Amino acid sequence: MRSVSIIGTGLTKFGEHWNLSFKDLIAEAGIKAIQDSGLARKDIQAVYGGCMASGRFIGQEHIGALIADQLGLNPVPSTRLEAACASGGVALRNGYITVASGLYDIVAVGGIEKMTEVSTEDAGFALGGAGDQETELFMGASFPALYALMARAHMHEFGTTEEQMAAVSVKNHKNAINNQYAQFRNEITIEDVMNSGYVASPLKLLDCSPISDGAAAVILCATEVARKMKITDKAIEIIASAQASDTLALANRKSLTKINATKVAAKQAFEQAKLKPRDVDFAELHDCFSIAEIMAIEDLGFTEKGKGGKFTEEGNTAIGGVIPTNTSGGLKAHGHPVAATGIKQAIEAYLQLNEKAHGRQVKGAEIGLAQNVGGSGATCVVHMFRRA
Amino acid sequence: MRSVSIIGTGLTKFGEHWNLSFKDLIAEAGIKAIQDSGLARKDIQAVYGGCMASGRFIGQEHIGALIADQLGLNPVPSTRLEAACASGGVALRNGYITVASGLYDIVAVGGIEKMTEVSTEDAGFALGGAGDQETELFMGASFPALYALMARAHMHEFGTTEEQMAAVSVKNHKNAINNQYAQFRNEITIEDVMNSGYVASPLKLLDCSPISDGAAAVILCATEVARKMKITDKAIEIIASAQASDTLALANRKSLTKINATKVAAKQAFEQAKLKPRDVDFAELHDCFSIAEIMAIEDLGFTEKGKGGKFTEEGNTAIGGVIPTNTSGGLKAHGHPVAATGIKQAIEAYLQLNEKAHGRQVKGAEIGLAQNVGGSGATCVVHMFRRA
Repeated sequence: MRSVSIIGTGLTKFGEHWNLSFKDLIAEAGIKAIQDSGLARKDIQAVYGGCMASGRFIGQEHIGALIADQLGLNPVPSTRLEAACASGGVALRNGYITVASGLYDIVAVGGIEKMTEVSTEDAGFALGGAGDQETELFMGASFPALYALMARAHMHEFGTTEEQMAAVSVKNHKNAINNQYAQFRNEITIEDVMNSGYVASPLKLLDCSPISDGAAAVILCATEVARKMKITDKAIEIIASAQASDTLALANRKSLTKINATKVAAKQAFEQAKLKPRDVDFAELHDCFSIAEIMAIEDLGFTEKGKGGKFTEEGNTAIGGVIPTNTSGGLKAHGHPVAATGIKQAIEAYLQLNEKAHGRQVKGAEIGLAQNVGGSGATCVVHMFRRA
Repeated sequence: MRSVSIIGTGLTKFGEHWNLSFKDLIAEAGIKAIQDSGLARKDIQAVYGGCMASGRFIGQEHIGALIADQLGLNPVPSTRLEAACASGGVALRNGYITVASGLYDIVAVGGIEKMTEVSTEDAGFALGGAGDQETELFMGASFPALYALMARAHMHEFGTTEEQMAAVSVKNHKNAINNQYAQFRNEITIEDVMNSGYVASPLKLLDCSPISDGAAAVILCATEVARKMKITDKAIEIIASAQASDTLALANRKSLTKINATKVAAKQAFEQAKLKPRDVDFAELHDCFSIAEIMAIEDLGFTEKGKGGKFTEEGNTAIGGVIPTNTSGGLKAHGHPVAATGIKQAIEAYLQLNEKAHGRQVKGAEIGLAQNVGGSGATCVVHMFRRA
């Protein structure tokens, strides 16, 4: 398997796009990414696009063909991948595999979700399909409820507090202020989070990522090919790509206070990159709910299991801290058009490693990590990045 | 890229499975395939599962994780792919890529659809998502209507008759009689087809494939690894795997009488296999509607463009003819749980090449081909097979 790099990126603003269609969002992110790479459409040999629930959100399937069509890339093979909220990460990994294997030199990878065309209730049901509908969703366990169970278990087992969870949202909102593509660019306080209404106790509104529209795309190129083409100025190498699965239903897990798929994928990713958690300079994490970021920093080895709340509260995950997390604003403040999230994480790594994360730059960042979770943790994808 | 072979297969009966759930179907096909391969679950390194519209049909997404969970394969990476009715073919191709590349030695690939949990009307809307919902489905162009337009164009341009289209269904029903996994095992006549009600003129009920439940799975193994393990007795090598895209909406095509994605994918597949259409001994084709099989035999080069109707009527595609097609019964008679179809086609090739297609065996078959189409032709996947 050969080295693969990101050579171009394209992102739409995340938010409520009443004036843009699903196709418009794909066009914006896709064309930006191709233009940013300096290549032409004819150079793209295949497309991998993540999308979770377009059938439920807009009545459209066959998203691979739609993307190729919308970007004028026919007749190249174009494939949709779905792994709930990890659809973007899974698309990135599969695009990576085709280039690493030598099958293709250059592929486009993206993620798209248009979630605001349906009612919030219907969106909740569509998202509930990320868990086990038979034993969870149809029994009333919405997604906030599943993560609330994990939060309660974490509080019980480790003494994690609601204020510590709130600190995740406060930090991520602060980071998003300097990100023009973020959905929420307003600072919030611990008090704001604590005073926001309960969605599923102990999780309050401001512990939860929003419903969003958005698309993100990257162009992958074999690093050796990029070198020959002399387009490595901004190239960011993917130095690890790992994916793991766990039970769909929370009730079948051995522990509610860790995401085992994260632990398994992280172990493989660190082995592939020949690095340790302490080598990572920043991380984009899957903070669909504040407790998820706390579990992530533990499961990835940035702090000990059970210490994530305190670690966050003490500012260790802020920019300038031990391990800055979600400099983009994370799912909470950047927004979470589910399948776009995994690609947006890679784009934040690309910006950070190119020192283009204006206003939120991690100084001297050399190694980045992205963790993308599907559902309540039945899928996790971990990628690691450095300058090519 | 190294050689990849199918070393085990598992199939459920296709039909209306009121007594089996989505998960039950996955378990049956998946466990059969693993058992047939002679391997154990621990040998499987990754899963690729095709599924078109589970969100619409049963309110469940995150199908990759669900499959791994249901088959006890955690924590291996498990990924869902979607390309409408070509979801199975696309899953097969992506599983193939990971083994051909050397990333994995052994992977499980499957396709699943449970379509009978919703009304026929709702199933029609879900399937309509395979086309362009904005310009087709939401304007009233259901899937039968789109293929009816192609049929009308073919009749107008080449003089193809309704009786010639009917001959496709008659042949496929005849083939299915000897297939215990087929949905319809009754013989029908040209008159039966002609007298069945119009669904979208000129297509009648018996020109159309049914709504079905079903699952299919295969185990892929690097041929060199299978040789070392001495499990090549029944191994069938995948000698070509190609995929192409076309516009989502029929209105944007240059021609209504061919599927360009089939032509592009076929060209690549024949080049990869270093073979010509005349070298193929049997083919599983995507006869979602009878006209689709007529276009397929033309686009794949088994007969000249425009001659497919006459070629079929004269018996050239029957078992014992020039190029037996859809010996399994095809989508029409074997049934069409959309994402399972592409895998079922590979299973029929496996059976034919192992001389296990009892009652429908193509004598001396050495080379098989499978063509799997998504939507009205926006995706096509072509695979070719021979004994390993």
